[in-house]
Amino acid sequence: MAFAFEVLARDGSARRGRLVTPHGVVETPVFMPVGTQATVKGLTPEQLEALGVQIVLGNTYHLALRPGADLIAELGGLHRFMGWSRAILTDSGGFQIYSLAPTRTITDHGAVFRSHIDGALFELTPEEAVRIQENLGSDIAMCLDECPPFGTPRDRLREAVRRTIHWAQRCRAAHHRADQALFAIVQGATDLDLRAECAAALVGLDFPGYALGGFSVGETPEQMRAVLRPSAALLPENKPRYLMGVGRPVDILDAVAAGVDMFDCVLPTRNGRNAQAFTRSGTLRLRNAAFRRDPRPVEEDCSCPACRRFSRAYLHHLFNVDEMLGPILLSMHNIAHYLRLMHDIRQAIEEGRFAQFHADLHAQLNQSSGEDQN
Amino acid sequence: MAFAFEVLARDGSARRGRLVTPHGVVETPVFMPVGTQATVKGLTPEQLEALGVQIVLGNTYHLALRPGADLIAELGGLHRFMGWSRAILTDSGGFQIYSLAPTRTITDHGAVFRSHIDGALFELTPEEAVRIQENLGSDIAMCLDECPPFGTPRDRLREAVRRTIHWAQRCRAAHHRADQALFAIVQGATDLDLRAECAAALVGLDFPGYALGGFSVGETPEQMRAVLRPSAALLPENKPRYLMGVGRPVDILDAVAAGVDMFDCVLPTRNGRNAQAFTRSGTLRLRNAAFRRDPRPVEEDCSCPACRRFSRAYLHHLFNVDEMLGPILLSMHNIAHYLRLMHDIRQAIEEGRFAQFHADLHAQLNQSSGEDQN
Repeated sequence: MAFAFEVLARDGSARRGRLVTPHGVVETPVFMPVGTQATVKGLTPEQLEALGVQIVLGNTYHLALRPGADLIAELGGLHRFMGWSRAILTDSGGFQIYSLAPTRTITDHGAVFRSHIDGALFELTPEEAVRIQENLGSDIAMCLDECPPFGTPRDRLREAVRRTIHWAQRCRAAHHRADQALFAIVQGATDLDLRAECAAALVGLDFPGYALGGFSVGETPEQMRAVLRPSAALLPENKPRYLMGVGRPVDILDAVAAGVDMFDCVLPTRNGRNAQAFTRSGTLRLRNAAFRRDPRPVEEDCSCPACRRFSRAYLHHLFNVDEMLGPILLSMHNIAHYLRLMHDIRQAIEEGRFAQFHADLHAQLNQSSGEDQN
Repeated sequence: MAFAFEVLARDGSARRGRLVTPHGVVETPVFMPVGTQATVKGLTPEQLEALGVQIVLGNTYHLALRPGADLIAELGGLHRFMGWSRAILTDSGGFQIYSLAPTRTITDHGAVFRSHIDGALFELTPEEAVRIQENLGSDIAMCLDECPPFGTPRDRLREAVRRTIHWAQRCRAAHHRADQALFAIVQGATDLDLRAECAAALVGLDFPGYALGGFSVGETPEQMRAVLRPSAALLPENKPRYLMGVGRPVDILDAVAAGVDMFDCVLPTRNGRNAQAFTRSGTLRLRNAAFRRDPRPVEEDCSCPACRRFSRAYLHHLFNVDEMLGPILLSMHNIAHYLRLMHDIRQAIEEGRFAQFHADLHAQLNQSSGEDQN
């Protein structure tokens, strides 16, 4: 079988795992850089490989609009199109229809929405979401789900959960590629009863992997934290668990502690483009004049290509004069930072000291309390 | 001596040479990518090294404004600041004062101008231009010159030539760094008498290299071609000759035939950022819908990182959705194209077949006559 998942070690609820895909092995817990439009913004595939990235995210919604999944299939699939020979996960577009499309109508049949690019009308059904992702040829495809924003009334949430289950059944029935794993998405917001109902139904369908959707949609970190552990516990022990779109290093730590294996988030690249660097002792805003003469690398003990060769003063200069190389270098550093965090997490689990690692890093990150160092 | 130049082979007036600098050997004729603000736009030093770039250009005017030459000196010089260990040539700022500064007053003492960034008042004297470049620590510095636009009346041209000579004397007197070569710049526009007068005076001062300035300032390619060969012939045989800011591949070919050794131009990177690819059979505009489904690389027999891994369709997509990777990849390809042209030129000179090479390529480029293939 082209696809397999194994839990290699456990430490509390945290899991050290290994995902085998047709495009290589993925060590979990893993962070997946976001390559929305068939490119991780500003970085070449060579640079991603050199950083040690094992899997990136692609986006059904964006790629279906431009350049179109049929075209990508005609050109040999998404891996070949974007020059990336390692693993790819594509999301289903459910989240983007809610967050980007200017108008949308959701029925049991599917979602009808207008493109945020040109207002053109599109319809995305569960079958079409599967067809698109089969055309893209990602290693992991996601079921189409309904992902309502935080604060949606319980009646509507229940409706969304019912529809998400119904759509997952249809996705499962429509899915045929043997070299692609189809994951289901559990919705239910912060309502544990709805989460349990959704998870039970989806687990009954026996998907090869499960995601927790509907987080990072407007709730506070505390609201997420309160339901994350019981939500993760609803998922099968022997399948990979993916927390979609989350998040900050501290959120990832908490989610790993709750038993989550996979993560994606735009923060390292988006913040990198905006001159914000992640470091172990907090974040740095490199546009700050304090860095104008600072000869140190972004992070002293970081071995990423940006820290090996350039000073904070140089990065400050690049951002100050609007040079592309600033976003490029800082995206590299931030991805390297996330990958190192995941590496350290995996090692701590393997060595049975994740609880301590979690507590230490949590204290350190809480101390800088999400605030900038400068 | 840290600096040396040797002509290894001649073929007609064309020269195959070797320039030794404190930061490595430069094979001539050479093309120098432009790194105006201490970065070749969009590319890392690693990528430039991998492309085979031996020398890049930095800019006195821009770097003096931001971040300031004193700051760069404090941080270990321009090489260290920008993470580039190969050779750097810095121009003197004379051209930028004319082309960028919104107001300027030139006297024999120097140029007083307002910054194009914030309108702040600056003064650049010959001594200050040298001091800045010594602070930057480039391998080759340029004398401050007066570079009037095309169409300047002869009286003013004569004045600019007189001043350029006077300033070159002062630059020479002010220059002290033994690990930096100071080149003089011959002005005179398309007036051969003025060129001869300027060259004779500067050659009398025995600089280690000479540039032809005042081209690519508004004259037609034909007007430049008409005076290029006699202008180059005014310069010493045993010193490197640098044609500033030129240009298109066809211009470079003509200038090599006239005996020029060094070139710089923003075309490969600027056009790359604007989706225009240079190929041996003309240029491609990759935003053109014709490339939407084109599975071929930008250029079939090109071994650059962009052509090895990506299709025209992918590049079209990247430009279409405004992804940074489009400008990055096409800047790489275009620099690779220029470097390959220079490699082929050097080989043709070594093998005594440059006249034929020149004629063939000229015919081919004239056939596509500067026009786009698409």
